[in-house]
Amino acid sequence: MSVYAGFDLGGTNLKYALGTSNGDIINRHSKPSLADQPQAVIFDNMFTALAELLQEAKAQGEEIAGIGVGTPGSIDFAKGQLIGSTPNIPHWTDAPIKKNFEARFKIPTWADNDANLMALAEARKGAGRNHGTILCLTLGTGIGGGIIIDNQIYRGVHSSAAEVGHIIIEFGGKPCNCGNFGCLEAYASAPAMVERYRRKLKRTGVVYEIEELSTELIFEKAALNEELAKQTIIETCDYLGAGIASMVHIIDPEIVIIGGGVADAGQEFIDRIEAVAKGVVLKPIARSLKVVKAELKNDAGIVGALLLAAENAKR
Amino acid sequence: MSVYAGFDLGGTNLKYALGTSNGDIINRHSKPSLADQPQAVIFDNMFTALAELLQEAKAQGEEIAGIGVGTPGSIDFAKGQLIGSTPNIPHWTDAPIKKNFEARFKIPTWADNDANLMALAEARKGAGRNHGTILCLTLGTGIGGGIIIDNQIYRGVHSSAAEVGHIIIEFGGKPCNCGNFGCLEAYASAPAMVERYRRKLKRTGVVYEIEELSTELIFEKAALNEELAKQTIIETCDYLGAGIASMVHIIDPEIVIIGGGVADAGQEFIDRIEAVAKGVVLKPIARSLKVVKAELKNDAGIVGALLLAAENAKR
Repeated sequence: MSVYAGFDLGGTNLKYALGTSNGDIINRHSKPSLADQPQAVIFDNMFTALAELLQEAKAQGEEIAGIGVGTPGSIDFAKGQLIGSTPNIPHWTDAPIKKNFEARFKIPTWADNDANLMALAEARKGAGRNHGTILCLTLGTGIGGGIIIDNQIYRGVHSSAAEVGHIIIEFGGKPCNCGNFGCLEAYASAPAMVERYRRKLKRTGVVYEIEELSTELIFEKAALNEELAKQTIIETCDYLGAGIASMVHIIDPEIVIIGGGVADAGQEFIDRIEAVAKGVVLKPIARSLKVVKAELKNDAGIVGALLLAAENAKR
Repeated sequence: MSVYAGFDLGGTNLKYALGTSNGDIINRHSKPSLADQPQAVIFDNMFTALAELLQEAKAQGEEIAGIGVGTPGSIDFAKGQLIGSTPNIPHWTDAPIKKNFEARFKIPTWADNDANLMALAEARKGAGRNHGTILCLTLGTGIGGGIIIDNQIYRGVHSSAAEVGHIIIEFGGKPCNCGNFGCLEAYASAPAMVERYRRKLKRTGVVYEIEELSTELIFEKAALNEELAKQTIIETCDYLGAGIASMVHIIDPEIVIIGGGVADAGQEFIDRIEAVAKGVVLKPIARSLKVVKAELKNDAGIVGALLLAAENAKR
């Protein structure tokens, strides 16, 4: 039996694990990703992690047959390389992931966008288990997405499919980090939600610094029936529901899966998004549209990376 | 050599043709579609047309090996049947196209949404010839769409993919015929464009009835440098460009093809839409995004229907 190495590189932590060809985690680890450091330092940090995993594999009498790496940003999948830059890892621009890993370790390596890998993990082992065509959203600092069509990751022609945070929901609306205006991310990401709440509070004379607030706090306050927190959540769901309606009118998936930190808020939040989306999609879609919560939580990234490696190594 | 029958059912005309397995038209015809009549009358009208085509085939010593039918509305492709209703053919609800044709003529029949067939025709013989992943838009009374992925029509799970007129471009905006608010169709269809121009005129004290205006007139006036007509076109392009940006952020196609009556307005209109879309998509997509005019014009529907029949009959 071969084993695989999976990496989930984030703006704060590098998660990595040894796993089976089914994406089951054997050993999991986490350490700082050194995301603000030069590219060579980030690679070295990952190489040290891989050396650990190679040791672990050896101790079990196994060899690592493939490496999967999930990272933020658009990835040229064939080259296993970042296309341009990604905001939270400033020196990660054009990072040649596949090339560097393979040069150093002579083990076949694949890299993909982290939201694509979350979608793959949910498709194989999570909320999308029994579905072949899936739309996944991750709600956090940004809004990412992954699309599974006929059981495979759909990457598009420029590896830029499922950039769901940047569909335009309000023509000429709020500025987005991407430089455009009116993107879904500018209305329904975690920071957008916090800012929305802060403004509501300010209008009643209660002034908070943005750092004092969080989506967790908003959900806590809403659970205590605090009106402005409840309004903030309802408005966020309205934007997410409308955004999902747009996506569904393009892809028409079997199921929509919502993950990321904000999605952990609870079933009510997901149910409300589903209700809004059902209310605004065309009838043939509304009848069977399902919006559900991701199941794999924090493990989705490494499970997806393990599956990416295992499924491609088998080909 | 087998020949095929293609039908393009519209709100005004029924176009039909005998054609080759490559979608080349041998004979083309057109007659009123009787779209306001009961369903049985619309079918009889199509059956009479098919009888003509059977005669023509016989005269050439050929047999019709398959029938392709394009119609507005969502189609359950496996059943060859309308899902629910379509606004411009009021009694066409749930029309069992495949079943009725096959019961009557014993010739294998396939039915599909007309915008899907336009996309297929452009993919095989039009502006999408050298591309495998294509997004097609038709601009007319409504805004329809078709998606080709890996050279095949992408229909989605409920045959409702590429309902591009109903992506939400302005959250909580103008009412749309679909019952929702803020859909692209409510901002950039031909009637929306005419209404936009009428309002601009009215603000300057010039009152027109809506029937006196048309998109053709707006393009004519703009060519004569009339400021309000020019503004109307610019604003329409802004909405279309933003809508296309949203779609492209989901599908990431090689090329975007624009057809339908409004697209005939000229290259400048298409170029402006492309410029707006390029300005608002993420950088990896912007570099290579192409927005072009459909090439097959009025023939796209029947050519697509012929190809649908020929390609499925061969399977």
